[in-house]
Amino acid sequence: MTSPSADRTPTDAAGRVPGQGADDGADVGLLSPVRAGSPAEAATGDAAFLQALLDAEAALTRAQARLRLAPAAAATAVTEAAEAARYDVRELALRARAGGNPVIPLVAELTAAAGPRADGHIHRGATSQDIMDTAAMLVAHRTLGLLLVDLDRTAAALAELAATHRDSALPGRTLTQHAVPTTFGLKAAGWRSLALDAWRRLSAVRETLPAQLGGAAGTLAAFEGYARSCAGQQAPSGTALRLPGVFAEETGLAEPSLPWHTLRTPVADLAAALAHTTGALGKFAADVLVLGRTEVGEVAEGGGSGAGGSSAMPHKANPVRATLVTAAARQLPALAGTLFGALVAEDERPAGAWHSEWQCLREALRLTGGAARCAAELAEELRVRPERMRENLALTHGRILSEHAAVALAAYVGRERAKSLVGDAAARSAASRVPLVDVLRELPELADVAEDVWQELSDPTRATGCAAQLADRASARPPVPWAEQAPGEEP
Amino acid sequence: MTSPSADRTPTDAAGRVPGQGADDGADVGLLSPVRAGSPAEAATGDAAFLQALLDAEAALTRAQARLRLAPAAAATAVTEAAEAARYDVRELALRARAGGNPVIPLVAELTAAAGPRADGHIHRGATSQDIMDTAAMLVAHRTLGLLLVDLDRTAAALAELAATHRDSALPGRTLTQHAVPTTFGLKAAGWRSLALDAWRRLSAVRETLPAQLGGAAGTLAAFEGYARSCAGQQAPSGTALRLPGVFAEETGLAEPSLPWHTLRTPVADLAAALAHTTGALGKFAADVLVLGRTEVGEVAEGGGSGAGGSSAMPHKANPVRATLVTAAARQLPALAGTLFGALVAEDERPAGAWHSEWQCLREALRLTGGAARCAAELAEELRVRPERMRENLALTHGRILSEHAAVALAAYVGRERAKSLVGDAAARSAASRVPLVDVLRELPELADVAEDVWQELSDPTRATGCAAQLADRASARPPVPWAEQAPGEEP
Amino acid sequence: MTSPSADRTPTDAAGRVPGQGADDGADVGLLSPVRAGSPAEAATGDAAFLQALLDAEAALTRAQARLRLAPAAAATAVTEAAEAARYDVRELALRARAGGNPVIPLVAELTAAAGPRADGHIHRGATSQDIMDTAAMLVAHRTLGLLLVDLDRTAAALAELAATHRDSALPGRTLTQHAVPTTFGLKAAGWRSLALDAWRRLSAVRETLPAQLGGAAGTLAAFEGYARSCAGQQAPSGTALRLPGVFAEETGLAEPSLPWHTLRTPVADLAAALAHTTGALGKFAADVLVLGRTEVGEVAEGGGSGAGGSSAMPHKANPVRATLVTAAARQLPALAGTLFGALVAEDERPAGAWHSEWQCLREALRLTGGAARCAAELAEELRVRPERMRENLALTHGRILSEHAAVALAAYVGRERAKSLVGDAAARSAASRVPLVDVLRELPELADVAEDVWQELSDPTRATGCAAQLADRASARPPVPWAEQAPGEEP
Amino acid sequence: MTSPSADRTPTDAAGRVPGQGADDGADVGLLSPVRAGSPAEAATGDAAFLQALLDAEAALTRAQARLRLAPAAAATAVTEAAEAARYDVRELALRARAGGNPVIPLVAELTAAAGPRADGHIHRGATSQDIMDTAAMLVAHRTLGLLLVDLDRTAAALAELAATHRDSALPGRTLTQHAVPTTFGLKAAGWRSLALDAWRRLSAVRETLPAQLGGAAGTLAAFEGYARSCAGQQAPSGTALRLPGVFAEETGLAEPSLPWHTLRTPVADLAAALAHTTGALGKFAADVLVLGRTEVGEVAEGGGSGAGGSSAMPHKANPVRATLVTAAARQLPALAGTLFGALVAEDERPAGAWHSEWQCLREALRLTGGAARCAAELAEELRVRPERMRENLALTHGRILSEHAAVALAAYVGRERAKSLVGDAAARSAASRVPLVDVLRELPELADVAEDVWQELSDPTRATGCAAQLADRASARPPVPWAEQAPGEEP
Repeated sequence: MTSPSADRTPTDAAGRVPGQGADDGADVGLLSPVRAGSPAEAATGDAAFLQALLDAEAALTRAQARLRLAPAAAATAVTEAAEAARYDVRELALRARAGGNPVIPLVAELTAAAGPRADGHIHRGATSQDIMDTAAMLVAHRTLGLLLVDLDRTAAALAELAATHRDSALPGRTLTQHAVPTTFGLKAAGWRSLALDAWRRLSAVRETLPAQLGGAAGTLAAFEGYARSCAGQQAPSGTALRLPGVFAEETGLAEPSLPWHTLRTPVADLAAALAHTTGALGKFAADVLVLGRTEVGEVAEGGGSGAGGSSAMPHKANPVRATLVTAAARQLPALAGTLFGALVAEDERPAGAWHSEWQCLREALRLTGGAARCAAELAEELRVRPERMRENLALTHGRILSEHAAVALAAYVGRERAKSLVGDAAARSAASRVPLVDVLRELPELADVAEDVWQELSDPTRATGCAAQLADRASARPPVPWAEQAPGEEP
Repeated sequence: MTSPSADRTPTDAAGRVPGQGADDGADVGLLSPVRAGSPAEAATGDAAFLQALLDAEAALTRAQARLRLAPAAAATAVTEAAEAARYDVRELALRARAGGNPVIPLVAELTAAAGPRADGHIHRGATSQDIMDTAAMLVAHRTLGLLLVDLDRTAAALAELAATHRDSALPGRTLTQHAVPTTFGLKAAGWRSLALDAWRRLSAVRETLPAQLGGAAGTLAAFEGYARSCAGQQAPSGTALRLPGVFAEETGLAEPSLPWHTLRTPVADLAAALAHTTGALGKFAADVLVLGRTEVGEVAEGGGSGAGGSSAMPHKANPVRATLVTAAARQLPALAGTLFGALVAEDERPAGAWHSEWQCLREALRLTGGAARCAAELAEELRVRPERMRENLALTHGRILSEHAAVALAAYVGRERAKSLVGDAAARSAASRVPLVDVLRELPELADVAEDVWQELSDPTRATGCAAQLADRASARPPVPWAEQAPGEEP
Repeated sequence: MTSPSADRTPTDAAGRVPGQGADDGADVGLLSPVRAGSPAEAATGDAAFLQALLDAEAALTRAQARLRLAPAAAATAVTEAAEAARYDVRELALRARAGGNPVIPLVAELTAAAGPRADGHIHRGATSQDIMDTAAMLVAHRTLGLLLVDLDRTAAALAELAATHRDSALPGRTLTQHAVPTTFGLKAAGWRSLALDAWRRLSAVRETLPAQLGGAAGTLAAFEGYARSCAGQQAPSGTALRLPGVFAEETGLAEPSLPWHTLRTPVADLAAALAHTTGALGKFAADVLVLGRTEVGEVAEGGGSGAGGSSAMPHKANPVRATLVTAAARQLPALAGTLFGALVAEDERPAGAWHSEWQCLREALRLTGGAARCAAELAEELRVRPERMRENLALTHGRILSEHAAVALAAYVGRERAKSLVGDAAARSAASRVPLVDVLRELPELADVAEDVWQELSDPTRATGCAAQLADRASARPPVPWAEQAPGEEP
Repeated sequence: MTSPSADRTPTDAAGRVPGQGADDGADVGLLSPVRAGSPAEAATGDAAFLQALLDAEAALTRAQARLRLAPAAAATAVTEAAEAARYDVRELALRARAGGNPVIPLVAELTAAAGPRADGHIHRGATSQDIMDTAAMLVAHRTLGLLLVDLDRTAAALAELAATHRDSALPGRTLTQHAVPTTFGLKAAGWRSLALDAWRRLSAVRETLPAQLGGAAGTLAAFEGYARSCAGQQAPSGTALRLPGVFAEETGLAEPSLPWHTLRTPVADLAAALAHTTGALGKFAADVLVLGRTEVGEVAEGGGSGAGGSSAMPHKANPVRATLVTAAARQLPALAGTLFGALVAEDERPAGAWHSEWQCLREALRLTGGAARCAAELAEELRVRPERMRENLALTHGRILSEHAAVALAAYVGRERAKSLVGDAAARSAASRVPLVDVLRELPELADVAEDVWQELSDPTRATGCAAQLADRASARPPVPWAEQAPGEEP
């Protein structure tokens, strides 16, 4: 039994749901702060997709003109009409329901807008999927371009953190417990290494994103038919087969080896690289969340765009950037899973698998793009507190060096005996809060141990093994190729 | 090496991406035709969420007023100001980035709009999650109300199909091959049965969707603090503990047994019911897709809002509704998976798990809502072709009755021998295209078989077992309680 | 260029991979410690599935005997032969490849084992899916029975923790930061509440798990054929239609309303309840992991079967149970997703969707069962350290009461001014480590504040709001019905 | 109310669940026929993992011996003892519960087996994760080696199909409906293209699979400690830093740039490549399932190991291989999703994320390996029926050439008018079953159309556009590098 309030919608006197106007079902970012206002959001909105659809149609007419299958004036007319702002994207969305995709109504609109010069030369020989897929690849290509910039920023900021804190010792933690000391430099170098892994995967995928052109069932048959009938324009034999390459050039995308209507490797590759990227950034965020816990306090989000307030508690400074990156990282595996699932695409165009890709791919791109923007801000503004790291190293009264002690004492009493002595001593230290090294020094069996060994076992900051050298080695991994490019060159 | 076209975005002279204006990253349905224009889309848009957030804030002040924790005038003022149209949802989305959720900026806006009468009585004692979760439950409650109507329509149309074609025999198909005959009535009754399963699950979940109220960490502490300091208003002891129930009444949602900030059963229940629903409808759609294949032709999508045209092929009539339902069904399992994953919510508010729910839950609601709308249209307009069913029954020259033959002949030669004879005869029939029954009749071993047995084995339409009775039994399952309600009553 | 070692397999002289004997590909739990040795593991192994397949076959013959469709001796013979230990499960697995499921070879083996008494009465009229699905439901029913016991243990132990620590105050934490105080009692009551939610969902699903019986395409046609030909045994009309109910009785499962070969609600219901359960237990584990961090130290895993050692560090006591529960909770959403996806099952038996369920359902059952066992041990042995909670409450020098301060001071200076003063004071306290309350007391504007207000704001343990009452209310939620049953009664 | 039968487990008199002996919870393939008996199954079983764990330990001692950190005799002793058959894998699985992984008990067993020569030199300086991760990479490396062979077989068989049926015309199908003609050669070339995509991705990942070595928290500290204390063995400075590389050589895996305990790119890369592979093979299987439907009949599974029988219907020949590949393809996206999710691994070793990888990675490897084996058999034995393709091309009475007609007639009446005329004619043809071309010929408006145009529009087999050339182009894509290798060389 519920009151009218919960059911505001159906009982509305006018029969309208709240705000059910033209665009009232719109998603403008209210539920996705990780990407609200990010470059990736704008680059993946319906307006951007509409522009990409128009770009694909214009490129097709231009490609046909280059191959003398259409007059140059038609290409010009279509290109001029291919401006998203001239069309009502919501109306196209609604009309897309009839045929199941927005290309059919768009072609009608574009034809009207381009006027008689383009008559008969718009979408000629193509199928809706040629345009949808090409547009999706254009959107992906453009969004990845923006995203790589933010990954680059992230990697650069992490490199600086690794250098600044090369030797800052802190507790290494395994299964939530202090294990042995490590350095913040090595942690930051590891985060950067993941960001570079992501950069390389996304960048490699971006280079290979193909245009799509195959016609109704991927045989180029209608293009060939038109080419043969263009006697007057002297299209030579083989023209249809050349069209996909020329079309790809006009779009700026890679040439496909085959029409890939149901050979969805490019989409799967995107899914994999995007899921990897949010996961890689999610690892960074997860560590920031742990290290920034009130009890740990080793890092804090910076203030610029960073640490967030609370609607209730005046003292709170929340790790908002890390939280939002985490939220994105939790959504990507499932989106990628749906995209991988769409590889199983029956026939020459599947009834559902293809359609399930669109929204998932868009969402994957914009969540990853938003996460990359947040991660860059997080890395650039992170506050690091080496003094808290030192305090935390002392929390276990030296037991964080139990492994070191076992190693060092093995030279005196053998490995197994050393392990056993240290184990007992650690238990006593935990119970009594007496430092581990003091418990051990009391043991007659260890009377011969040299003083410098005891000194070493008293200072966790010296027990970081090869952490600094490993971080140095990782830092030597070159930054993203980006940095090597001539100024102004497109990434 | 890519041309400028693919990278239109970064090379844009003005440094702007195409259409990167206020709302240009908006999703208005272009990539999701399954829900474009559906009631569920409007009920789950950012405007609807904003309205629900406002409804939650207003309900909170009203509840406090009922318990004498706030003046009635404050409640009135907030309720009047709680009209989504008065706020800029995009601006709120952008400002949500700072704190990680939209409630913080919204409270500021609402406070300004409500004016001095409500001063100090907006959001008092609450935390952002109280409002976000309550709003999400309101949106879910409203959307499910709409969705149930379409499920009801679907079930009713399928009941009619089951009745009309109670005895229409068609090939039962297992692992893609003709198996034994069944009836279209049984198929339709099965689809309806799934729709009713979905109806009951969604309906049950809807009844239990709780309001959320706990304050900063779920202890109601600030409410209690304010209650104690409201000496003048004489709030009795225990007032804070009563507040969630009164608040729930004001929202129309169920009263929670505990603040459930990190006890996310309601969200998991929604995930499960929505994933079940799209899967249930997806089974119906999958069968329509198979039965409607050009070679099968036993059903076709109706023309009203149905069968879709092609941008290239004038003769095509595509099963668009079934395709769109399938597309939705392919996306729900992953969305549900992310929501199930968010059950693992550390502390009193998790950093990421909660935030990952919002967009997924919205998407799950609107995809399911869109699928239910499409399924209703599909069921109501489905064209059924019994004559094609009969033609298809004849395709295997009677081999579709091989099991029947084995059963019938077992009485003469024993079960194993019958199976073996029929197996050999089926192979010969397949090779020669001679009807199975004719091959069998030639066998001396079967000379004694009665003529009526041969007659029966010659007519697949008589070999539908208990299909009609099973369908009758399923049809006797009562329709959704909906139908039993008084006219005009809200479901 | 890799050395032979990595490729041990292909270069093995004998052409055999290591241990590629009969069962050498077996999974005996090495990679899944969460369930190794648990009751659920044994109840879901291939041997248990084989037993369930045999139970289903025996029940079918018994059901036919009860309806006079088979001699009683046949039923006895099959039942006696239906002992898993008599069959080679690995050989059946290998032979399952030919037809795609293990029932076909099993029927041959069972027929041989049962001997002439059962001749012609094994699997008569059934299809493989009847047996596979019934077996899966039997395995699920049995495993859930075991699982509910462990959930019950978990809930009982958590109830005790909630009672014992009803008033133990500790920092409430939101987005990783101290927020306001709460109680351990409320946390434990929340965990219990989730465990009860899981119990009820699993228990409800268990009651409805149906047997499966439909024959080749779900029409019961062969059963009807045999019934008609059993003149001598006088099977009355309608016998075939009664068979599923009698069969269900013989299995102990619920009677299906329709053959559900492709109406997979039961499997989806299982998926949902299992995913909810691991998520619910995962929340408990996630909190244990956070609260047990070295820096937090408020809980620790108990020693009995609990806290785990390390292969390297003598001092480590790892939260192994919580880790393993978490590992299971991370796997269930995806498994559930695959099972939800299988709802979209075309035709009368789908080619792949059905087959994808088997391993996923088994894995979901055993991971959840293992998680429940681990959770019970974790709850029963958890060590709680109220002294560390108090220490942690003091970590922020009183800033954890900033909201309380703002509430209390609102009575003096108004809500907005109070918030602002406390916000500034909190910042100064954080910088200077001077207690928040001392910073505030210095403010002339607050000179009139009563001394008992300052006292209250100095003691976080008194600021737990309604936490204790909420926990009491939650504890009043009755334990699982289990407890109400007569002794010895099966759950 | 359920009978004892369903609850056989708890009511067993002896208190034992059926077959709850040592290994009775084992999975030996009964529920996963796609991989039962496949090379990948044996290579991924617990015995194979155990062998890989032992190989990793032996490689570590050998590596230490090469760097003079251990005596050569110790390396020999460990290597000799590293034979899986000497250990009880089930017992190790059970003992793994205590510490959460099987390495701890294994080290104890191995130490006992290797005897005094190896004393103190087993697992020295390592952490369990070093051994687990290295073993997982060894298993992956070995399994991929086997898997690539089957992908190669698949690609080769598909190349042959593409060549043999280069010009066999069949209906191109989009959204389940006949669209325009295509060729079987192009379909087979597309399937091969996907198989090659998969081959390249798996092969590239395989080359980079790294060994793991970092010690307790990834700093190599204990290795460094031991190296320093090995004065007598003169281990030079920097020895610890060289150890991972030497260890990698001994395992045959790639050298890691950093310890990757929580930098899980290698696992994510595996997840992506495996999910792509099953999806790619799933597309092939999906097409086989459609083309093999009784009504379509254009292909059938071969008989060798192929088309499966039915337990009920003597005439059935089920597409078992395609079904099993499909079942695997439905499971991989979710498994990959869990693995992607494990990228978010907090600290130096996460509590749960890492543990969630093991079973998922194994399952992903063996399902993909099984799918590759099935796909190879499917491709090699596929029966192709060009005569059924021709029959199906005729099903729509020439309407499959509606696009061709519109293109051809555009030269006479303009593009829009042609489309409109053909659309009307197609509708009339569908209603009357009169061939489309005959309907068109009747139109006075088209009286001038040349006879050869009508001829062309009467023959769908001539209307395959550039299908053959596209297939030729795709076939020119070189086969896998495999073929280029010297005979006997390991892939």
